[in-house]
Amino acid sequence: MTRYVYPFEEGDGQDRKRLGGKGAGLAEMSRIGLPVPPGFTITTEACNAYQASEQVPDGMMDEVWDHLAKLEGKLGRKLGQVERPLLVSVRSGAPISMPGMMDTVLNLGLNPDTAEGMARLTGNRRFALDSYRRFIQMFSNVVMHMEHAQFEHILEAVKHQASVRLDTELKEADLEEVIRRYKDLVHQETRRSFPDDPKEQLQMAILAVFDSWRNPRAIVYRRLNKIPEDLGTAVNVQSMVFGNMGDTSATGVLFTRNPNTGEPGMYGEYLTNAQGEDVVAGIRTPKEIAQMASEMPKTYQELVGVCELLERHYRDMQDIEFTVQEEKLYLLQTRSGKRTARAAVKIAVDLAEAGVITRDEALVRQDPDQVQRLLYRQIDPHAAVELLAQGLPASPGAASGKVVFTADEAEARGNAGEAVILVRPETTPDDIHGIVAAQGVLTSRGGMTSHAAIVARGMGKPAVTGCEAVRISLPDETFTVDGQVIAKDTVITIDGGSGRVMMGRVATVEPELSEEFTQLLEWADETRRLKVHANADTPEDAAKARAFGAVGVGLCRTEHMFMGQDRLPVVQAMILAETLEERQKALQQLLPMQESDFYGILLAMDGYPVTIRLLDPPLHEFLPDVRETEKELEDVKKAGRTADVDHLEAVLRRARSLFEFNPMLGFRGVRLGIVYPEIYAMQARAIFQAQARLLKEGHHPDVEVMIPLVGIPEELSRMKDMVEEINHEVGREQAVELPYKIGTMIEVPRAALVAGSIAEHAEFFSFGTNDLTQTAFGYSRDDAESKFLPTYLAEKILSDNPFMVLDRKGVGRLIEIAVAEGRAQRPSLKVGICGEHGGDPSSIEFCHLAGLNYVSCSPFRVPVARLAAAQAALKHRA
Amino acid sequence: MTRYVYPFEEGDGQDRKRLGGKGAGLAEMSRIGLPVPPGFTITTEACNAYQASEQVPDGMMDEVWDHLAKLEGKLGRKLGQVERPLLVSVRSGAPISMPGMMDTVLNLGLNPDTAEGMARLTGNRRFALDSYRRFIQMFSNVVMHMEHAQFEHILEAVKHQASVRLDTELKEADLEEVIRRYKDLVHQETRRSFPDDPKEQLQMAILAVFDSWRNPRAIVYRRLNKIPEDLGTAVNVQSMVFGNMGDTSATGVLFTRNPNTGEPGMYGEYLTNAQGEDVVAGIRTPKEIAQMASEMPKTYQELVGVCELLERHYRDMQDIEFTVQEEKLYLLQTRSGKRTARAAVKIAVDLAEAGVITRDEALVRQDPDQVQRLLYRQIDPHAAVELLAQGLPASPGAASGKVVFTADEAEARGNAGEAVILVRPETTPDDIHGIVAAQGVLTSRGGMTSHAAIVARGMGKPAVTGCEAVRISLPDETFTVDGQVIAKDTVITIDGGSGRVMMGRVATVEPELSEEFTQLLEWADETRRLKVHANADTPEDAAKARAFGAVGVGLCRTEHMFMGQDRLPVVQAMILAETLEERQKALQQLLPMQESDFYGILLAMDGYPVTIRLLDPPLHEFLPDVRETEKELEDVKKAGRTADVDHLEAVLRRARSLFEFNPMLGFRGVRLGIVYPEIYAMQARAIFQAQARLLKEGHHPDVEVMIPLVGIPEELSRMKDMVEEINHEVGREQAVELPYKIGTMIEVPRAALVAGSIAEHAEFFSFGTNDLTQTAFGYSRDDAESKFLPTYLAEKILSDNPFMVLDRKGVGRLIEIAVAEGRAQRPSLKVGICGEHGGDPSSIEFCHLAGLNYVSCSPFRVPVARLAAAQAALKHRA
Repeated sequence: MTRYVYPFEEGDGQDRKRLGGKGAGLAEMSRIGLPVPPGFTITTEACNAYQASEQVPDGMMDEVWDHLAKLEGKLGRKLGQVERPLLVSVRSGAPISMPGMMDTVLNLGLNPDTAEGMARLTGNRRFALDSYRRFIQMFSNVVMHMEHAQFEHILEAVKHQASVRLDTELKEADLEEVIRRYKDLVHQETRRSFPDDPKEQLQMAILAVFDSWRNPRAIVYRRLNKIPEDLGTAVNVQSMVFGNMGDTSATGVLFTRNPNTGEPGMYGEYLTNAQGEDVVAGIRTPKEIAQMASEMPKTYQELVGVCELLERHYRDMQDIEFTVQEEKLYLLQTRSGKRTARAAVKIAVDLAEAGVITRDEALVRQDPDQVQRLLYRQIDPHAAVELLAQGLPASPGAASGKVVFTADEAEARGNAGEAVILVRPETTPDDIHGIVAAQGVLTSRGGMTSHAAIVARGMGKPAVTGCEAVRISLPDETFTVDGQVIAKDTVITIDGGSGRVMMGRVATVEPELSEEFTQLLEWADETRRLKVHANADTPEDAAKARAFGAVGVGLCRTEHMFMGQDRLPVVQAMILAETLEERQKALQQLLPMQESDFYGILLAMDGYPVTIRLLDPPLHEFLPDVRETEKELEDVKKAGRTADVDHLEAVLRRARSLFEFNPMLGFRGVRLGIVYPEIYAMQARAIFQAQARLLKEGHHPDVEVMIPLVGIPEELSRMKDMVEEINHEVGREQAVELPYKIGTMIEVPRAALVAGSIAEHAEFFSFGTNDLTQTAFGYSRDDAESKFLPTYLAEKILSDNPFMVLDRKGVGRLIEIAVAEGRAQRPSLKVGICGEHGGDPSSIEFCHLAGLNYVSCSPFRVPVARLAAAQAALKHRA
Repeated sequence: MTRYVYPFEEGDGQDRKRLGGKGAGLAEMSRIGLPVPPGFTITTEACNAYQASEQVPDGMMDEVWDHLAKLEGKLGRKLGQVERPLLVSVRSGAPISMPGMMDTVLNLGLNPDTAEGMARLTGNRRFALDSYRRFIQMFSNVVMHMEHAQFEHILEAVKHQASVRLDTELKEADLEEVIRRYKDLVHQETRRSFPDDPKEQLQMAILAVFDSWRNPRAIVYRRLNKIPEDLGTAVNVQSMVFGNMGDTSATGVLFTRNPNTGEPGMYGEYLTNAQGEDVVAGIRTPKEIAQMASEMPKTYQELVGVCELLERHYRDMQDIEFTVQEEKLYLLQTRSGKRTARAAVKIAVDLAEAGVITRDEALVRQDPDQVQRLLYRQIDPHAAVELLAQGLPASPGAASGKVVFTADEAEARGNAGEAVILVRPETTPDDIHGIVAAQGVLTSRGGMTSHAAIVARGMGKPAVTGCEAVRISLPDETFTVDGQVIAKDTVITIDGGSGRVMMGRVATVEPELSEEFTQLLEWADETRRLKVHANADTPEDAAKARAFGAVGVGLCRTEHMFMGQDRLPVVQAMILAETLEERQKALQQLLPMQESDFYGILLAMDGYPVTIRLLDPPLHEFLPDVRETEKELEDVKKAGRTADVDHLEAVLRRARSLFEFNPMLGFRGVRLGIVYPEIYAMQARAIFQAQARLLKEGHHPDVEVMIPLVGIPEELSRMKDMVEEINHEVGREQAVELPYKIGTMIEVPRAALVAGSIAEHAEFFSFGTNDLTQTAFGYSRDDAESKFLPTYLAEKILSDNPFMVLDRKGVGRLIEIAVAEGRAQRPSLKVGICGEHGGDPSSIEFCHLAGLNYVSCSPFRVPVARLAAAQAALKHRA
C-alpha cells in the first residue's frame, strides 16, 4: 500500500514532487541537523488520490494518527491533552510554489481546555488566549471560508471598547471577549459550533488544503503558468513553536543575500513577540534584520551560520522563515529566493567565484528576458504612475519629455537641449531628424514593424506605437485619450518596454553593465558555439554593438541611409527620373554619400564581417504621402507657382504608379535590383570604393554583400554577376584586390525550398525571419498584431507571438530545409539569422540546434544573445 | 568520313534531324512510290560543319557533284548541257519549319544557251524564256540579296510598254527584253555579271541556304520559339518539273482535309500554266482544288488517291505541294498541316474513328490552350480591327457594346436589352448588378485577381482589366486614350482573351462544343485518373459546370453571395455591429438568404460533392470606399441630415479601424472565424438547413465544409468542433442525419509544412494555389503583374508566370510535402486543387504526378481540364 505520510526526518529532501517544496525543505533541513520543529508531511500522492476518488484515501488518516502519536511521544505533548497540549501548524506545499491555495493554520489544537492548559504550562495566560483567538480567526478563514474582515471588525470593536491601539495592549479579559464573539460569529454564519475537538480540527485542516488545490484562483494560476493539474499539493503538519512568548521570542523572514542588488549579507526583517502572520499583516512595523545583531546577538550569529550552511547546501541564495522561541532559533521554511535581474547576475557570479556553483550553472540560472531589462533605462518600479494609455511596446526603454507634434519642432527644441516626445499618427522618412532629436516617439498607428518602431529600435530610442486610444488633432496640436485632452508641452513619460504612456515625469532608473554582468558574458563567450553579430546601420550603432560584444554586423540596412534629410531629395529625384540617364545622374550624387556610410561602418567594425544588404523597401516609401501632396498641390496651384505644380504633379504621378495593394509582397528587394540594376550597381560601387580606401589606409574591412528577397536562383545569379563586374572595375581603378563574399537573405518560403540551387550562387544565407514568418503564416505583421493575433494569443491558438518567438514547426522547418540543402550544395556555406528573432532566447536555442553559424540582433540585445547562445550550448551539450 | 549527301531514294524518311522536314518528306514519298521528281538532300550536318568552320566542309561539294552526275545519268539530262539541259530547284529544309531563312530557287541551270536548249527541247521558246527570267529574278533575290521590287518594276515597265496586263500575255521578244534589263540591273547593283555557269549557280545557291541559317530574322525566330541554334538546315536539290508548260500543266498546294473545320475532303488551290511562286504571289487568282475535278479529272483522281495514301501513311492530315507537268502529277512536299483548334479536334476524332490513329493519340494531339479557345466567343480572325488600347486579359471572350460608366446605367440599359460595356477605374461589390447586365467589363486599374477580373471570370463574362492607357473621367463620362476622347455610348469591343480594346463593333465567332469535341472528352474521361470539379458560386454556374462535365464543385465561394444588392446592406450592418447581439441580429437576417444559396447549388450538383468555403475576404471589402464616404459625409453634413451623418460616421470609423496595410495577409479566412465565430456558425447552419431540406425532398446533397486560410492545426480543430455542434443541433431540430465532410484549404506555406497535424482534423485538403503562390514567392499578384513580373518574364528569370503555370520547384514542393504528410496521418485524405491553376494543363500534369484526387477550375475550363488530365495520364502511363 502506498505510504502517504513521512516525518521530516524520514523524507527525501530532493523529492519535491512527492513532498512539495516546503516539505522537502523541512526534510532537508532536518536531515542536515538544522533546528526544525518536528512534524510530518502528507504527500502529494495523497492529495491526488483524494482528488481522483473525491474521498479521503484509504488508510491515510490512520497513518496521520500513527505519525501524530509518534510526534507526541517525541515531544512529550499530546494533541488535546490539557496538561501538555501539543499545538501544530498545518500548511500546504505544492511542488511548485503557487499562490491561490490555502496557506497556513497556526496553533491548531487549541480549545477552551487546552488553552487553559497552555496558560498554565507557559505561565502566560495572555499568550495562550492570544494564540487561541488567532487560531479561531485563521481556521475560520482558511478552513471554513469565512471572511477575514468580519473577525477584524470584532477585534477593532473590542480594542475600541478597551481604549487601546495595539493588539498587544489587549488584556486577558479583552481576549476572552474576543474569543466569545468570534465563536458567536462562527455559529451565526455557519450554523455550527466552532470545532473544539483537536483531531477534528486537524482532519478538517488537512482536507481544506487538499480542497484548495481545486479552488478557482489556483486553477487559473496553473493554467496561466502552465503548471500541470496532476501535481497536487502536500500538507505539512508541524509542531508549533511560538514567537509570541515575550521579548525573547520573535519571528521573521530573510534572504541570505540582498535580493535587489545581490550584495552579500542577510537581508530581511523580524518582529519580537509575534507570530508569522503579524510580519505579513503589517500591523506593527518589523525591524531590519541587522538590528537583531544587537538585540539578540547569540541568535543573530546562529542565523548567520544557518544562512551560510543553507547557501552552501542548496548552492543558491535562500529565502527563509524562522521563529525564535525564548531565545531558541527554529527554521520553518527555506527556498530559493526570488531576486531582481541585477541581483541574479551578481549572486550567480559571486557564488561561482566562491566555488559554490560552476560557471555553467551561473549561466544557466539567468533568465535572458530578465537580463535584457538591465540594458534599458526603466521606469522606477517604486514610482507612482498615472497611466494614460497602452500601446505596443515597439522599442524598449523609458523616456520623459514635453509633447510636440512635428518633427521640425522636435528637432529644434531637442537640439536646444529640451526633452521632447514626438507624437505623430505615424512617422515617415521625413520625420527622421525629429526622431533623432526627441527622447522618444509615440504613434497612434502602426505596429511593431512600422517605420517609427524600426527606426526607434535601430537608434535604441524608446517608442510606443499603435496606441490607438490616443486621438491626435494635428491642427489643434493636442491629443485626446478618453476625453482627456493633452496639449502641446504637457510632460508625458513613455515606456517602450511595456507600451505604457504615463502622465508627467515618472522616475526612471539607469541601466548598467555591471562588473559581474561583464564577467558572466565572458563566461558565456567561452561556452557558446553560435557567434553573435549585430544589426547596425550607422557607425554609432556598430560601435555600440562592438561595446556590447558583437563580432560582426549581420545586417546593415542601406535604406535608412537613404532617409537622411540631405539624401531624401536626391533619392526622390532618382525615383522620379523618367530616363535611365536622369536616374544615373541622381545615383551619381548618392554614390559619395553611400561610400562614406560604408566607410564609417566598415571602420567601426574593422576586422569583423559586415553584411551590407542592398536596397530593400519599395520605392514609394521614399515618396511623400499622396494625400498630403494632393493638398500641397492645391495650395501651390492657388499661389500660381507653376514650377512647383509641375514637380508636385510628377511626384503624384509617380507615387500613384508605384501604389501597391500589398507593399509587403510588392516591388522591393532584388525585384528592384532586377528592374533597376543601376541602383544596386551604385551601391556595390560605393561599398567597394569604401573598402579600397580602408585597405589603403591599412584597415581590414571584411565585406559581405547581401541581396534581399531572393526567391529564384536566377535573381541572385544575375545580381552576383553584376556585383562581381563592379568589384573588378573598382579593383582595377584602385589597383587593389577587393575580396568579398556575396550571399542572400532567405526570407520567402520559396527561397528555402530551392536553397540548394540558390547556394550555387551564395556564399552565405541570412534568414530574414520577420518576413519569413509573415510569408510562411500569411500574416502581415502590422495588421496581425492589431487585428487577430491578440485573440490568438489570449485563446492559446498560438502559444507565442511568432514575430517574437520563432515558430519552429513552420518557419523553423523552412530554415532546416534551407540549411541542409544549402550546405549539401556548398559545404562552406555560412548561415545566420538577422530577423528580430536573433535576440530572442528561444529562437537562439533553435538557431543553435539548427546548426547556424551566427545570430544577429539589435546592439541592445547582443548581451542577451551571448547569454542565450551559451545557455543553448549548455542545454544541448552532447 | 561523314556522308553529307543522300539521294531521296536512299534517305531515311524518319530522320528529320539529318534531312530536315522537307528532305525527310521527299525521301519518304519516294520510298512509298509516290511520284517525286528525283533529287538529293545535303544534310544538316553539312550545314553545321559549315557554320562551325566557316568554310565548305571537305568533300561536300565532291559528293554533290557525284550525286548530281548520278541524277543526270538517271534522267538523261545534264546540268548546263545545251541539248538536254537539267534544271533543278534548291530549297532549304530545317528539322523544324522555320520562316526567315532562304526558301527556294527554281529553274537553276538556265543560262542563255540552256534556255535556248530548253526552247528547242520543249518546242516552247516562250516557256523557256519565262523560266529564265523567273530564275534570274529569284536567284538574284534569294542568293544575291537584291530587292525583289526592282525586278518587278522592270517587269511592269515592259508590260506597260507592250500594253499587256498579265505576265502570260508577254511575247518572246518582251521576255528577251526583260531578261536583258534584269541582267543589266544585276551588273549595275552588284558590280558582277549574273553567273552563267550552272555549277557556279548551284554552289552559290547551296551556300546561300547555309548562310541564311544565320540571318537575323532566323535567329530572332529561333530565340522566340526556343529552337536550338545547332539544329542547322538541310538543302534539297531536286530536278525541276514544270507547271508552266501550258494548259495541261499546273501547280498547287492543298490540305488533305479542311484545316479550318476539319471536314474531310481536299482543301486547297492551284494555278494552271504557272510555277509555285505564282500561287503565293497572288498575281493571278488561283482556283479551288474542287475545280480540278472537271478541269483535270484524271489528275484530280490521282491526287485524291495520293492524299488518302499520305494520310494513312503519316497518320495525320497533310499539307502538300504538287506540280502537274503536261498531265503528269509530281509531289514536291508533304508535311503535317497546321489547323485550327476546331479542325484539330474533328480531324483527330475522325482519324481515330477510322482506325488510322488510336483514341490515345487523338487525345495527345490536342493543344489544350488551343482547345480552350473553342469555349469562348472570339474576335473573328478575319475581321479588321482598330486597336484602341491593350490591358490585361482578365476574363476570356469577346464582347461589343456601348460604353457606360456606372453600374446603375449598365443595369438599366443592359436589362432593357441594350449591349453595353461597363467602363470603371475599378469595380467594387457595389457594381455587381452592373456587371451582370453588361456584355463585358473594362477597368483602368487592377490585375488578374482584381474584383472585376474574379467576378467576370466567375460569370464567364469578358473583361479587360488594368488597362492603364485608358484614362477615365467619371464626371465627363468619357475616357481618353492617347488624347483620343471616347464618349459615353461609343461602341467598343473588348477581347478578354488577349486584353485588346478595339473601336466599334468587331465581328465575333460563336463558341461551340461540337459532336467530335464531346466524343474526345468522353475518351478523355475514360483515360484520366484525376477527377475534374468546378469552381461555382451560383446554381447557374453549377449547372454550367455539370454541362461541361464537372463531377463536383471544388470551390463554392460564399463571399460573392454577400455582395448581392439585397445582401450588402445586411452584411454591412453585421460588420458595423458594436455588440455581439447586434451582429447576431444581422446574421439572423442573412441566414435564410444563405440557406437558399446553398439549397440552389447543392440541388444543381445533386449527387456530387459540393465544397463550400466559409467566408474568406477581409471585412473591409464589404464596406464602401473611404474617400467616397468622406465626400458623401461632407454633402450630408451640409444638407443637415443628422441620422445619415451618424451612420456615415460609424461606417467611416469601422472602415478605418479595419484598414489594413497588406489586406492579402490580413484579417481574413479562418482568422475571421476565430474572432467572430458567429459568422461561420451562421454559415454552417445555413448549409445544414439546406441539406436537411434537400434530403427530405429526396435529393442527395453531398456536403463538404471548407475552412479557408488555416495555418495552425488548432484553428481548424476549433472551427471543426463548432461546425460539428451546429450539425448536431440542426440534425436534432430537423430529425435527420446530416452527413458531411470537413476540410481546409492549404494556401499558406505553414499549412503545408504542418499538414500532418492539420490532417488530424481535416478529411480533405484543397490547395489554394493562388494564395500559396503569393505567399511562397512573397508576391502580391495585383502588384507583381503590373510591376516586375513582366520584366521577369521578358528576361527569362521566370519561364512562366507562376500565377498561370504552377511553380513546381517551390509551390509544387509544398504541395508534395502536404500530400505525403497529410496522407501519412490520414490515408483516406481527399486532396484537390482549386486555384486558377486547376485549369492549366501543365499544372494539371503536376497534380496528376503529385497524386491529387481532383482538380477544380472555372466551369469554362472544365473541358480543357478533362483533356489535360487525360494527356497527363497518357504521358506518365507506367
